[in-house]
Amino acid sequence: MIHELLHNKKVILASASPRRKELFALLGINAYIIPAEIAEPINGEEPQVQAMQNALRKAEIVKNKVDKDAVVIAADTLVAIDNHILGKPLNQKEASRYLRLLSGNTHSVYTGICIFYNEIANINYEQTLVHFAELTELEIKSYIETGEPMDKAGAYGIQGYGAQFITAVDGCYYNVMGFPVRKFYEMLNAILEKEEK
Amino acid sequence: MIHELLHNKKVILASASPRRKELFALLGINAYIIPAEIAEPINGEEPQVQAMQNALRKAEIVKNKVDKDAVVIAADTLVAIDNHILGKPLNQKEASRYLRLLSGNTHSVYTGICIFYNEIANINYEQTLVHFAELTELEIKSYIETGEPMDKAGAYGIQGYGAQFITAVDGCYYNVMGFPVRKFYEMLNAILEKEEK
Repeated sequence: MIHELLHNKKVILASASPRRKELFALLGINAYIIPAEIAEPINGEEPQVQAMQNALRKAEIVKNKVDKDAVVIAADTLVAIDNHILGKPLNQKEASRYLRLLSGNTHSVYTGICIFYNEIANINYEQTLVHFAELTELEIKSYIETGEPMDKAGAYGIQGYGAQFITAVDGCYYNVMGFPVRKFYEMLNAILEKEEK
Repeated sequence: MIHELLHNKKVILASASPRRKELFALLGINAYIIPAEIAEPINGEEPQVQAMQNALRKAEIVKNKVDKDAVVIAADTLVAIDNHILGKPLNQKEASRYLRLLSGNTHSVYTGICIFYNEIANINYEQTLVHFAELTELEIKSYIETGEPMDKAGAYGIQGYGAQFITAVDGCYYNVMGFPVRKFYEMLNAILEKEEK
């Protein structure tokens, strides 16, 4: 299990996200938090590629600040619909536009993960499908009034008022929260197995 | 949205579950908590029927303690595999047996919901599929050592160490947490629409 694999390791979480911190606590991982601030310009790559690139950049920033034997963990989560990445909305108008795009549709959430250990960056990603109910204009207006959409990628929070608009997810739920727990466990197992050989 | 529909209502959550309480807070619902303790004997009915029966029994207990115009909300969540309900394990041996049943398999989580309002019990349920990774005997042993399985239906907690064993869910995630938010919103909309006519 994750907490056993990391038991005697120095673990660094390269993220300021309170939800990732919370998840690490749930999993019994003792980690130092060293946030990595990067600009996240949207380039022409596919969403999963950008999520992995961003995770790598975050890990790169932090790995130089810590001991060589530390395990540095970075992640980057993106919301995409039809391969278009939806960042945080710039204003209420953009939030409405995003919510109309998501309404009655299925979008993807991608998280890129980078585990930097023993001078090697191990990178992978997870994709989860999220099915949104059809929203009325009144619901979109009411939801924006709660303030929740404004600082969220894709203009919604699955852990909040946004929960009532999600009819189903298909895949890893924790990925939507920002950290695909099962994928992380599988990566860690593979990395530490390599180490034993 | 839910918090608007319930804004001027007296809302009673007939549950002691801290996760349901937490979800209500996330959704901006101000509710009084009045736990309803019921025995939950497993009978021959299908799991979704038992979950709805139990939700109804909880609502029935609480509705007599509160004002007539209150909205009483009760829920009951069951874990089932091949139509067999898995309750809380009696001991570590039973926990191992449950975890071996879940390993590499897909099981269902059912939540029955009862909304008692205007002297009418409105009842429905939600089903979510949960896909479990294959567990090694060592993982089962380690997981039981964390203590987490012992007070959980089905011998696992999706919000804890158990998260690393879940490869995917298929359906409403909040249902697995004990309260299907979207279904609840739909029920509430239907009930209060009826009221307006």
